[in-house]
Amino acid sequence: MNIGIIGLGLIGGSIGLGLRKYNFGKKFIGTDSNKDNAYNAIKLGIVDEIISLQDLILQSSIIILSIPVNEIEEILPSILNNISADTVIIDTGSTKNSICNRVLYHPKRSRFVATHPIAGIEKSGPTFAHHNLFYQKNCIICDCELSDPDAMDIAHKIYSTIDMRIIYLTSEEHDLYIAYMSHLPHVISFSLAYTILEKFDNKEKIFNNMMGSGLYSTTRLAESKPETWLPIFISNRKNLMQAINFYINYLEMFRDDLIQKKFDKIDRYIKKANKMKDKKYV
Amino acid sequence: MNIGIIGLGLIGGSIGLGLRKYNFGKKFIGTDSNKDNAYNAIKLGIVDEIISLQDLILQSSIIILSIPVNEIEEILPSILNNISADTVIIDTGSTKNSICNRVLYHPKRSRFVATHPIAGIEKSGPTFAHHNLFYQKNCIICDCELSDPDAMDIAHKIYSTIDMRIIYLTSEEHDLYIAYMSHLPHVISFSLAYTILEKFDNKEKIFNNMMGSGLYSTTRLAESKPETWLPIFISNRKNLMQAINFYINYLEMFRDDLIQKKFDKIDRYIKKANKMKDKKYV
Repeated sequence: MNIGIIGLGLIGGSIGLGLRKYNFGKKFIGTDSNKDNAYNAIKLGIVDEIISLQDLILQSSIIILSIPVNEIEEILPSILNNISADTVIIDTGSTKNSICNRVLYHPKRSRFVATHPIAGIEKSGPTFAHHNLFYQKNCIICDCELSDPDAMDIAHKIYSTIDMRIIYLTSEEHDLYIAYMSHLPHVISFSLAYTILEKFDNKEKIFNNMMGSGLYSTTRLAESKPETWLPIFISNRKNLMQAINFYINYLEMFRDDLIQKKFDKIDRYIKKANKMKDKKYV
Repeated sequence: MNIGIIGLGLIGGSIGLGLRKYNFGKKFIGTDSNKDNAYNAIKLGIVDEIISLQDLILQSSIIILSIPVNEIEEILPSILNNISADTVIIDTGSTKNSICNRVLYHPKRSRFVATHPIAGIEKSGPTFAHHNLFYQKNCIICDCELSDPDAMDIAHKIYSTIDMRIIYLTSEEHDLYIAYMSHLPHVISFSLAYTILEKFDNKEKIFNNMMGSGLYSTTRLAESKPETWLPIFISNRKNLMQAINFYINYLEMFRDDLIQKKFDKIDRYIKKANKMKDKKYV
């Protein structure tokens, strides 16, 4: 049984390393449009062999599709066209609804399982891949009723093997929730970095002198690359627009209370925000 | 030579532990309006003795003032009134201009050194204090020309002892820069936590299922307590209002580009934000 990984970056690479560590699957084959990624994936033992996309599709019993969401949408229908009747294909994209809609009426839709292992970090590429990346993190599987039971079973086994908690949602629910819980924090972090750079660019001394751990953690996500994130923002555009507007409203509420010296209101605002702590350890 | 610490929280407590570790000063005495903090400061070896504020002022050669910035402003003039001619008083508040203005014409102004060791975390109280909290972090000393050379010398020795990099700025410069580099990230983090809680409060499942490391790091600062941060926001209100408006403008620019599908502009926006990475390791 060959496992084929399309896209040997952080997520695809870490799935490969995780499955190998627990002896899931015999042979791992892979493909990546980036030659450095392909080279490193061999060197790091993520896959045994780099082959063409066409050969990978023909030779794999399980296909993991770990490329930017726009490329998943583009390539998924033709992969489904070409797989054998018992091959399972699993994607790992950070948005789910537009991908699921793209193949909704495909005759082989049931061989596809739409998943989102929530484990990305601001680093990318196979050199950051780690077998332990997913440990006790959440994996969302969407629109399960559209996948065959044996395909669901394989997806379940894969994510259990790499120690993820598995959660089932519709792709609409997933995209709405993730807009607030992941895509909005990325926009906020990009915008904070943009603001600070616009204000103090070329003033290296200010960065040297004033950088504290607070700015570090709030701009960590701003290191995330546009190749991954622009397609995510485009794919989840409507939910994200709603989330940004919702956020700006509360930010303006804070600012207006500051302008109008309504400090009691700011005190209550901070106390409410403090409750986020309880949500982190539920 | 007694060292007196007024306010035995995270910062005051960590300065005490740091100085003791390197045998700076003989006896440490302290005071805190919070009885638990006072009790824990003795238990954790931060100070040798808890005494009244009045006695601490009389018995200390060096006074470290580590309480919320509004309380520093309130208490500093009367401490200066009561110290002997060779006592040095050093505050650690996160804003500097309103504190410096408060004592600008005080006859003993020159015994005071205005400092900001940039090392706060979202946790507070002496139980989180650590001798190593300040290691290789930045300490800003403001308006140096208004402090006596021997007082400056002591402040310099204290912060060198706990391994801080010392930087000199005017209190106006400090407050403007810190508004963007620290106070704005706190407002952003409080507002993100507020937004998520408003949207999904009482939906524990969503927090359980969708929480990823991105939301963790961007809402870390939202755990910071209002007793410390509301006075900071009030004290640096004008700079902070400017910083929030500046930030909202860029956030709206991102949102409008998303609405108008100007994806090339978003691509450039992300690429610019990515440059923050280079500033972190200068």
